[in-house]
Amino acid sequence: MGCLLSAGSPCKLGHCPLRDVRVADRGQRRLGGWGFEGEGFPPSAALLAWLDAHLGATAPPPAGDLTQAPLEAPRPLPPLAAAVSTTSRDRLVHARGQGFPDLVRMRVGTVGRVPDAIVYPASDTETEAVLHACVRAGALVVPWGGGTSVTGGVNVPPGDGPVVSLDLTRLAGLVALDATSGLAAVGAGTLGPALERALAARGFTLGHFPQSWELSSVGGWIVTRSSGQESLGYGSIDDLVAGLTLIAPAGRLDLPACPASAAGPDLRELVLGSEGRLGVVTRATLRVRPRPERVVVTGVVFPTWEAGLEAARALVQGEVRLTLLRLSDEPETQVAMTLGLSRLGALAPLAHRWLAFRGVRDRGCLMLVGAAGSEPHVRRTLAGARALLRRHRAVNLGTGPGRTWLADRFRHPYLRDALLDRGIATDTLETAAPWSGVPALARAVRAALAGALQRERERVAVLCHVSHPYLDGASLYFTFFFRCPADPDAAVARWATIKRAATTAIVAGGGTLSHHHGVGAWHAPWLVREIGQTGVDLLRAAAARLDPTGILNPHVLLDPTDRLES
Amino acid sequence: MGCLLSAGSPCKLGHCPLRDVRVADRGQRRLGGWGFEGEGFPPSAALLAWLDAHLGATAPPPAGDLTQAPLEAPRPLPPLAAAVSTTSRDRLVHARGQGFPDLVRMRVGTVGRVPDAIVYPASDTETEAVLHACVRAGALVVPWGGGTSVTGGVNVPPGDGPVVSLDLTRLAGLVALDATSGLAAVGAGTLGPALERALAARGFTLGHFPQSWELSSVGGWIVTRSSGQESLGYGSIDDLVAGLTLIAPAGRLDLPACPASAAGPDLRELVLGSEGRLGVVTRATLRVRPRPERVVVTGVVFPTWEAGLEAARALVQGEVRLTLLRLSDEPETQVAMTLGLSRLGALAPLAHRWLAFRGVRDRGCLMLVGAAGSEPHVRRTLAGARALLRRHRAVNLGTGPGRTWLADRFRHPYLRDALLDRGIATDTLETAAPWSGVPALARAVRAALAGALQRERERVAVLCHVSHPYLDGASLYFTFFFRCPADPDAAVARWATIKRAATTAIVAGGGTLSHHHGVGAWHAPWLVREIGQTGVDLLRAAAARLDPTGILNPHVLLDPTDRLES
Repeated sequence: MGCLLSAGSPCKLGHCPLRDVRVADRGQRRLGGWGFEGEGFPPSAALLAWLDAHLGATAPPPAGDLTQAPLEAPRPLPPLAAAVSTTSRDRLVHARGQGFPDLVRMRVGTVGRVPDAIVYPASDTETEAVLHACVRAGALVVPWGGGTSVTGGVNVPPGDGPVVSLDLTRLAGLVALDATSGLAAVGAGTLGPALERALAARGFTLGHFPQSWELSSVGGWIVTRSSGQESLGYGSIDDLVAGLTLIAPAGRLDLPACPASAAGPDLRELVLGSEGRLGVVTRATLRVRPRPERVVVTGVVFPTWEAGLEAARALVQGEVRLTLLRLSDEPETQVAMTLGLSRLGALAPLAHRWLAFRGVRDRGCLMLVGAAGSEPHVRRTLAGARALLRRHRAVNLGTGPGRTWLADRFRHPYLRDALLDRGIATDTLETAAPWSGVPALARAVRAALAGALQRERERVAVLCHVSHPYLDGASLYFTFFFRCPADPDAAVARWATIKRAATTAIVAGGGTLSHHHGVGAWHAPWLVREIGQTGVDLLRAAAARLDPTGILNPHVLLDPTDRLES
Repeated sequence: MGCLLSAGSPCKLGHCPLRDVRVADRGQRRLGGWGFEGEGFPPSAALLAWLDAHLGATAPPPAGDLTQAPLEAPRPLPPLAAAVSTTSRDRLVHARGQGFPDLVRMRVGTVGRVPDAIVYPASDTETEAVLHACVRAGALVVPWGGGTSVTGGVNVPPGDGPVVSLDLTRLAGLVALDATSGLAAVGAGTLGPALERALAARGFTLGHFPQSWELSSVGGWIVTRSSGQESLGYGSIDDLVAGLTLIAPAGRLDLPACPASAAGPDLRELVLGSEGRLGVVTRATLRVRPRPERVVVTGVVFPTWEAGLEAARALVQGEVRLTLLRLSDEPETQVAMTLGLSRLGALAPLAHRWLAFRGVRDRGCLMLVGAAGSEPHVRRTLAGARALLRRHRAVNLGTGPGRTWLADRFRHPYLRDALLDRGIATDTLETAAPWSGVPALARAVRAALAGALQRERERVAVLCHVSHPYLDGASLYFTFFFRCPADPDAAVARWATIKRAATTAIVAGGGTLSHHHGVGAWHAPWLVREIGQTGVDLLRAAAARLDPTGILNPHVLLDPTDRLES
């Protein structure tokens, strides 16, 4: 839906540029914001009007120049046995991820602690040597893939000792392809577009497209249990990793690629989600598939959210094999439909009346469903889906919304910067729950978000969608907006108040702490609520075995300190 | 194919009795053999002729009476806070699993050590109390579900101290069903038929049908990473467990049912395959599905094993959504076809000539493919499969072989006892590998098996099939036969020689140590070859955290001692 939140021109291609892997070589990574220099995604008039109605007037906050931020001199480190950088720009780039506090602080030029050095190992041997050198020097190590964490997962840990950012850029690329088995061995530092380009040249795709795809890395996907937008068809990264290599101060784990095994517990699943706390993932063998001949995403609209949820459940529990399903709630649909209908010009009132006649009034909910594969498979799959959706009172909108969404799906994160320019703070959070708990959880989290700033007499505007449905449940993805105070500390405090309220509502409502953002530093205090003290202790025992001196990302996952305002 | 190895009458029902969950209340569990008193599965004349040609003459070995075996007096134990039995029969039943050495020793009435007591906790609280009492008494604990381990996983551990068998019989049954989400909370002691009966009454199925299904338990499936015969459609038990409870001496793990999560590593996957070494699984929440309207299994035959493998890979990597695929190698097919054709009577020579005309001579390979769901879905799916199979030179045999296989699929383990009555030893072993490695691995393991007894100038006859295909690879399942010496120690020594040769060939050939039998005591020495010393150490660290005094199944999974001859 985010696609329809933009004033950008709709996609002219009629298909997803990604599918042609035409992602050109981009400009320099933007410092203190999402993406690449010179790119952006302006908010649509419909979104701005909706925000104005829900939040009231906002004012642009002050902006600083991060490149002028005074940095501490790097602490001395021994030789790190690999290429090292201590330039100011590299230290700034590696200081923080892409979470809301990161964005707000970097915009005004106050970044906080930065790493003392960035090290770029080019082999497993160099990675091992770097870790051993850091153990000896008492330096903390933060593994760095694409730097897109929104949970404080790559931020410099607190403390006085030296900190090294271990950048995996040089451990990138397609190492080997077993075309018969559909197994691709890739360096963990490989970013999404480079991976798909390399696979496309051999006729394959991974099919893993998280929203951060343009900037995030294979290793990052693995250690945060990333889910792509087509997870319904391709599975999440957990399903796509057949084998991997993890290098830790006290040993290395080489897990061979195997289709399935009963040789004891699955240690891959201990590395997946380990967020750099157990070691550095340097390589993975991924399950890849032939590139689909066709990808089609089509839109329908339901009279109510409840009807949409029922239809979503019926679809995934039935016999139709979709690759994508997204269901927007009423507000998200309203913003999108305003824009979508406005594009119809003089026909808009007619379309409005037609939708009302079909039962879709203000409370309509948009669903996108997608299929991929051969031409006949896609046609048959979407026909099957439409037949089921009609029985659930869906009104067909055709492929227009889907085409726009496909074209714009990786540009949505730019919106956050553009809104912040206007004094509107925005962030997202997510969870998942069994189907029976989804409606109540959605209500509880929405209520927690909307009421979080009541004491400050500030409003929080909320949009929600389901984007990863499963046989037994679904994810819920919330986008929230609030008026951003000019002072960055005040802005982060306001955001932290909202996060605490929402996260508490999530775990109290039976949702998981995170469906795909991960735990990082910011969600860590709540982890014990999900896996219990025994679960936390088990992970601590694994970390103590692999990293006895605790140099690896010690503030993430297992440290219960509330660092939301850090 | 095992169905066609029997002289039993082919199924008259035309559908799988399982699907009607007509599994009647059975007789008493047989002591020292598979299954229930009064049931069996005699070998077919075709199989016996083939074995005679491949092994030479055999003689029935001596048999003893296990119920007359002299047992040591039970060692004294403190009160165990739950129902306890020390009867001879219960101690004999809980002494061993269903592996080849177990069978051979129990037949002659030499069972070895038996547990000192069997304890039957009826709640999590009782389970915790039992474990605490055993820690205090220094007693070892062997968790017991259905007792069908073929890897020494439930055998009494070596040592002089007291041993308690923790039988989960009383922690059984459907606890709760969330029909909306398709989630069933069940006691870990629930056996296959009871589970499917309870689910069928509510219109659901788990779809998990390992060959041991009639006797094995939910908890046993989980801790051994069991795969059902329809894993292609339903997934293996790893995919079906949404949440679980594990009770250990030093804590309990309650992992909530969640469709997916990025809240750190997946601790479910540490419990799956833990073989009682980390704790006792007392409950699980399983992903269940509506019972399919139709289940159809159909047979085709390929001119060669290579053609069959290519077709299997093309099927699972394509767009046809089967629930079952089995491909037998030439010898397995030969035995089955001899029988199948003999049933045609006077038409047999004609059928022979027709198959030869279609390119299928002596080297033909039988494939069964199955689909489940609504009538139109099954029809469309099988039509799609047949179209693809024709392009791979398959000759259609119709649904006859599939019907027979469905009817007999849980009776195959009885064959082992019936053959042993004739002095023919038989066992199975299995692995999995990426598709590119499957042909060479199959050759290497077959060669290792066939040549294992060369020094003794004894032959080993080998059948093989693929039964669990995946996008990236497949399992290989071997059945091997050899002449059984009269002396049980000599029989076990001969078997151990074969196992060592085959297991070494499996790990050297890039196969996993086990696809679904597990590690147990007998495969444990090879585990380090698959997950490395760091992997073993990680599992040890987890075990030390949950079971600091090491009372739980200490001889399985992580103990590298070769116990094949125990």
